[in-house]
Amino acid sequence: MKVAVLGFGTVGAGIYEMLSHAEGLEQGPVLVRPGKDDAPFKRTSIEAVLAEPGVEAVAEAMGGIEPAFSYAMAAIKAGKHFVTSNKALVAAKGIELAAAARDMGVGFLFSAACGGGVPFLHNLSLAVESDMIVSLGGILNGTTNYMLDAMQRRKLSYGEALKDAQKLGYAEADPSADVSGLDALRKIVLGSAVAYGVLPTEGLYNEGIENITAEDVSRIQARGLTCRLMAKCGPVPGGKVYAYVEPVLLKASAAECSVLDNYNMARYEGKCSGPMVFMGQGAGRWPTASAVLRDLSCILKDKFFMLRADCRRGSADNEACRHSYYVRLPGSLTGCFEVKSYSETDGQTELVTKPMSVKAMHEMAARLRAEGAKMFFAAFED
Amino acid sequence: MKVAVLGFGTVGAGIYEMLSHAEGLEQGPVLVRPGKDDAPFKRTSIEAVLAEPGVEAVAEAMGGIEPAFSYAMAAIKAGKHFVTSNKALVAAKGIELAAAARDMGVGFLFSAACGGGVPFLHNLSLAVESDMIVSLGGILNGTTNYMLDAMQRRKLSYGEALKDAQKLGYAEADPSADVSGLDALRKIVLGSAVAYGVLPTEGLYNEGIENITAEDVSRIQARGLTCRLMAKCGPVPGGKVYAYVEPVLLKASAAECSVLDNYNMARYEGKCSGPMVFMGQGAGRWPTASAVLRDLSCILKDKFFMLRADCRRGSADNEACRHSYYVRLPGSLTGCFEVKSYSETDGQTELVTKPMSVKAMHEMAARLRAEGAKMFFAAFED
Repeated sequence: MKVAVLGFGTVGAGIYEMLSHAEGLEQGPVLVRPGKDDAPFKRTSIEAVLAEPGVEAVAEAMGGIEPAFSYAMAAIKAGKHFVTSNKALVAAKGIELAAAARDMGVGFLFSAACGGGVPFLHNLSLAVESDMIVSLGGILNGTTNYMLDAMQRRKLSYGEALKDAQKLGYAEADPSADVSGLDALRKIVLGSAVAYGVLPTEGLYNEGIENITAEDVSRIQARGLTCRLMAKCGPVPGGKVYAYVEPVLLKASAAECSVLDNYNMARYEGKCSGPMVFMGQGAGRWPTASAVLRDLSCILKDKFFMLRADCRRGSADNEACRHSYYVRLPGSLTGCFEVKSYSETDGQTELVTKPMSVKAMHEMAARLRAEGAKMFFAAFED
Repeated sequence: MKVAVLGFGTVGAGIYEMLSHAEGLEQGPVLVRPGKDDAPFKRTSIEAVLAEPGVEAVAEAMGGIEPAFSYAMAAIKAGKHFVTSNKALVAAKGIELAAAARDMGVGFLFSAACGGGVPFLHNLSLAVESDMIVSLGGILNGTTNYMLDAMQRRKLSYGEALKDAQKLGYAEADPSADVSGLDALRKIVLGSAVAYGVLPTEGLYNEGIENITAEDVSRIQARGLTCRLMAKCGPVPGGKVYAYVEPVLLKASAAECSVLDNYNMARYEGKCSGPMVFMGQGAGRWPTASAVLRDLSCILKDKFFMLRADCRRGSADNEACRHSYYVRLPGSLTGCFEVKSYSETDGQTELVTKPMSVKAMHEMAARLRAEGAKMFFAAFED
């Protein structure tokens, strides 16, 4: 399937590149603004893109509502499948795009618009077919998570955290859509549309992180809590939904506390499936482009196999994987290992090995146990 | 699509029930052993099941290799799509089943066989189409995670933890496949087949948790570490894979440490997507049945929409969501909230509100800020 790409910025260029080695997909023309000539296979009008022979799908990564919406409608009306990473477009015009795609019998997917690389909407939209979604939400903005994490773990001030995020390319020169919670709100609105068939446009709240100070952070930490910016959504009796974004204070055991740097964590709770949590990179060229490619793969296939045609039986090779191991065993057996450190109590030795292969460790344990030794071992995570 | 169900135990009965309200799916006949008569729509031979008019897909939840394999081949050769939650079957006969399904032009999916409700294999198999999988693995056995967690957080002995797991139905009367790591190994073998097209049958290692004692646990905790049973797999130069299961010691910041009770956490790292983490219930009637239904939904559709045809714009209703809030604001404004507790320093008050609605909190903040107040608030996670 030949895929045209609209836009050749960070994400568009990533999509184009990934198309070159994706199963069943092929690089098509790239739409760039007149005057820009950095793209291979470039075209400067949507008409020229759609007229290109063999184009069956269009991937949009321009951002903004116009001209993205007009181009999307033109593509769909020309009978092309349409996938996008543009959350502003889908939040504003998703219903119109879905209706047009249904009319034309083409696909319309936008996994990359919520959570970047995290396959949240994809899985949510599958779950909806057979399960009831009790609630959904999570940490949907990587920029603010990076900033909150930096303020909490590295004790940066708000200004320092923002400057850091900008230096790393996580925050725009104008960061207001991120820090105000608007970006996360747009994403949870898409989640609501997928889960409940309602795209809320009013009654929404977004409290961001602009008002948090280093002093707030230390008071929160003194209570043993961690602050994350979370989006939440769920059904309300009468066919409505609740949907809002606000800072939330979490206990240390909450899974959200393990979401560091600019990662995202999205979750839904299905009545049957129970809680389902998805964590990964919420933005960036390659994660976002992979989500777009995943949508294209979904459109491509109408039968679905998990095993490729050439899948074969084989032998595992566990020799190259090496770790330091923690080993508890009878003291007399210490000599069987190259040891980094050890201590002994009541004839039991607890030792840390030098790095050794998985094969060597498991085979040594089998040998010692065959000789009657009682032992426990565990790898140190690198 | 009418779906026949093979087996009417915990998972089979869950699948049958979920079929009654899944979009586009329909309850078909249920195969039970002769003499069992607890199933509605029951048949006692595979021939009778496949002869039932209108059956297009078969969902197997009997467990074991035979007769499941013969029945699966009969179904596929009769032109039915085949989905299963049976990891022993797929680990032993997955290649033969995939080849037969390909020949017949029907689908063969087994999401539920690895991670129960966690959509790991489904997402992995999609990622494989366009990305390179650098590694995969995780906590793939809920029984042993429950036991390790109970030993570490509740200080149970190994025997007490096992008894507890059995009482809750997490561990079988004969728990050896779980505690030896064999169950997790079978699952990572399926992951290898999906990710690399190699189903390793030799050279594998599984060190389980049978040898861990309460004393090991306290020594590990004294080092500030947490023990989890993890499966790991990845490519080795020359077209082989490494694949093994062993206990791993993790630092407190590792996401795996937040996996409590009988939850599973599976992850893969894509070269483009980066690390992707999936967490949810790895076993149980409804989580496993939802995974089977998700596979059936995948087979059902050859076009894919994320928005249903009746998706509409609407207003969010944020009045019924209530939390206690942490609020930092000028001391003079304390009276604006119903307060559970507060403290004051330098004219700044830090207070905890009684439970109040999201709407009330966000609107109060907007009002106070309109009057010039500087404030920060965050919800307490319930």
